Amino acid sequence: MDHKGRLRRLQESLHRNRLDALLVTHLPNIRYLCGFTGSAGALLVLDKKRVFFTDGRYRTQAHAEVQGCTVIVSKKGALVACAEWLRAHRKSSSRMRRRVGIEGEHITVAERSRLSSILPGDSLLRPAPALIERSRMLKDAEEIEQIRKAVLLGADLFDVILKAIRPGVKESEVAAELEYAARKAAAEGMSFPTIIAGGTRSSLPHGRASDAPIPGSGFVVCDFGVILAGYCSDMTRTVFVGRPAGEARRVYEAVRRAQQAAIEAVRPGVTVGEVDEAARKLLKKINLDRYFTHSTGHGVGLEIHEPPRIAAGQAEVLRPGMVITVEPGVYIPGKFGVRIEDMVVVTERGCQVLTPTSKTLIAL
Amino acid sequence: MDHKGRLRRLQESLHRNRLDALLVTHLPNIRYLCGFTGSAGALLVLDKKRVFFTDGRYRTQAHAEVQGCTVIVSKKGALVACAEWLRAHRKSSSRMRRRVGIEGEHITVAERSRLSSILPGDSLLRPAPALIERSRMLKDAEEIEQIRKAVLLGADLFDVILKAIRPGVKESEVAAELEYAARKAAAEGMSFPTIIAGGTRSSLPHGRASDAPIPGSGFVVCDFGVILAGYCSDMTRTVFVGRPAGEARRVYEAVRRAQQAAIEAVRPGVTVGEVDEAARKLLKKINLDRYFTHSTGHGVGLEIHEPPRIAAGQAEVLRPGMVITVEPGVYIPGKFGVRIEDMVVVTERGCQVLTPTSKTLIAL
Repeated sequence: MDHKGRLRRLQESLHRNRLDALLVTHLPNIRYLCGFTGSAGALLVLDKKRVFFTDGRYRTQAHAEVQGCTVIVSKKGALVACAEWLRAHRKSSSRMRRRVGIEGEHITVAERSRLSSILPGDSLLRPAPALIERSRMLKDAEEIEQIRKAVLLGADLFDVILKAIRPGVKESEVAAELEYAARKAAAEGMSFPTIIAGGTRSSLPHGRASDAPIPGSGFVVCDFGVILAGYCSDMTRTVFVGRPAGEARRVYEAVRRAQQAAIEAVRPGVTVGEVDEAARKLLKKINLDRYFTHSTGHGVGLEIHEPPRIAAGQAEVLRPGMVITVEPGVYIPGKFGVRIEDMVVVTERGCQVLTPTSKTLIAL
Repeated sequence: MDHKGRLRRLQESLHRNRLDALLVTHLPNIRYLCGFTGSAGALLVLDKKRVFFTDGRYRTQAHAEVQGCTVIVSKKGALVACAEWLRAHRKSSSRMRRRVGIEGEHITVAERSRLSSILPGDSLLRPAPALIERSRMLKDAEEIEQIRKAVLLGADLFDVILKAIRPGVKESEVAAELEYAARKAAAEGMSFPTIIAGGTRSSLPHGRASDAPIPGSGFVVCDFGVILAGYCSDMTRTVFVGRPAGEARRVYEAVRRAQQAAIEAVRPGVTVGEVDEAARKLLKKINLDRYFTHSTGHGVGLEIHEPPRIAAGQAEVLRPGMVITVEPGVYIPGKFGVRIEDMVVVTERGCQVLTPTSKTLIAL
């Protein structure tokens, strides 16, 4: 991955964002910029210098992984070490205060207080714009290839789910088979807690696999993803155990068409709000929109949920290289739910659906 | 679980902490107080009222799970809904400003800004003491039973690891067997990414299971835990593949004795720093303390890492009902590492080791 290029571009953007430094504490942002995959670190990016801080547990790993930065290992923890470094390297020559950007969406109120208490008086902490998240929204070719591999692995694993789903089998057992196969296939882990939600539980949009048995008849929502070399996949298919009656078929078909409509709306220049509206409009025609209780999708990459949010009224404009989910759903409380989700990458002329799995209703 | 008692005791503590309300946003704290297990929510605890906010995805689940609170489902998300509720319920009669505590260790700088922009002028946001974390440190009998079950399940699963470890097998395959067995045994998931680190990788204190093969000879650090009914387990055993030579045996024995010394130090009235010192002192005698690069342990409960931190110089005093790990380790860079970890509960007179697994060196 192009860590040094990413760091350089971030450095070049500091000045026009009126920052002398950016303190990066959000771990996926750290991984994106310098390659560190551990769970404790802070990255300080200055005009002419990049310093990565971690603690003793990650000494060897940091030296092996971190690209383009000086590595400092401290007993005091990354954040304190970083603040002390800033104090020791104050710009005594300048009469200007040093403006240190922090990641307001990630750093806690207490962490900011601790930083402030250590920093010298000539440093000014300032919540910075989401520079790295905005850069991460646009995946480069290497990232898209990595995401594609993760998506294809996820799609392969859907077969494992289909084999495991039988009336009476616990949802958690289906998840167990899936996750075992994922690990065997070199996934680092699942990108979020696996959702296997059968029968009335399918009406819970976030029905994590439970001890409930798969019912003799009804929908089963299967929403899962893997992490491969740091990148996440995310897909949902809803299958039917038994023979689906008219209402179930109608709702499934409506969700399938809504999802297709949203995918067809994805192209450069369109706002994410318009993509959301495309799905919602179709469900509205048949009075199902009130059961579509979440947004249409989200960006995916090093994190399972990252910008942009594909939601009503959002103004973010799609650009080539964005990778998003398209996942409308209909949840009728106490009855059943249906969700269908693909990952798509925005291309120069439209989009490409990464998830290869059929969306025809499968009856098991 | 005693959700209503926990909520009542928190309400009773507001006044003496000079708060009119506490806004709880840290999910494990929300679960502890009211039972909600979803991934989006905010809990507002006032003197005479408790209101839980979530979004549409969790409507059914919130109504089913949340104890002792009014449930409000909002399209705008939990935090905004909570701020708007506070604005709509301002105490017009009082001339005092309403002091709303926030969880400074958990709420982000950006979340605080968003809250501030909505709240009425008579509300004052103030980082609150860690009231809930302090309460959570002391587990009640029901919690200890739940933790014991999780620990025993973890210990059973160690046999799966022993069967899976063979030279040439990938670390990730060992993890796959473990995690599959955990799911089959009703674990909701693993409490952290499984560490299986063989050969020189054992010298990485946080060596997540990788694609590296188990070597023909050397240590394998196995650190893993399960989540059962929300409560975490955590254990580490280090086994040897092949016949351990003198140095390996000596280091293993040193860690084993250091761990035993720390366990023997655990009793009410002792500080956590003294427990850390007990392990470190023993390693110092044989010049291994410089390779013990992390703290001795941490609290465990609804979170895998929670207070107290068992670290050098920490002044927290052990009390009955605390559940902590004791896990010294020695990591010789580029050579090998050894860690041994049990969970223990502090009792009236000393402690009880929850982890039943033998610590004699196992050679496979």
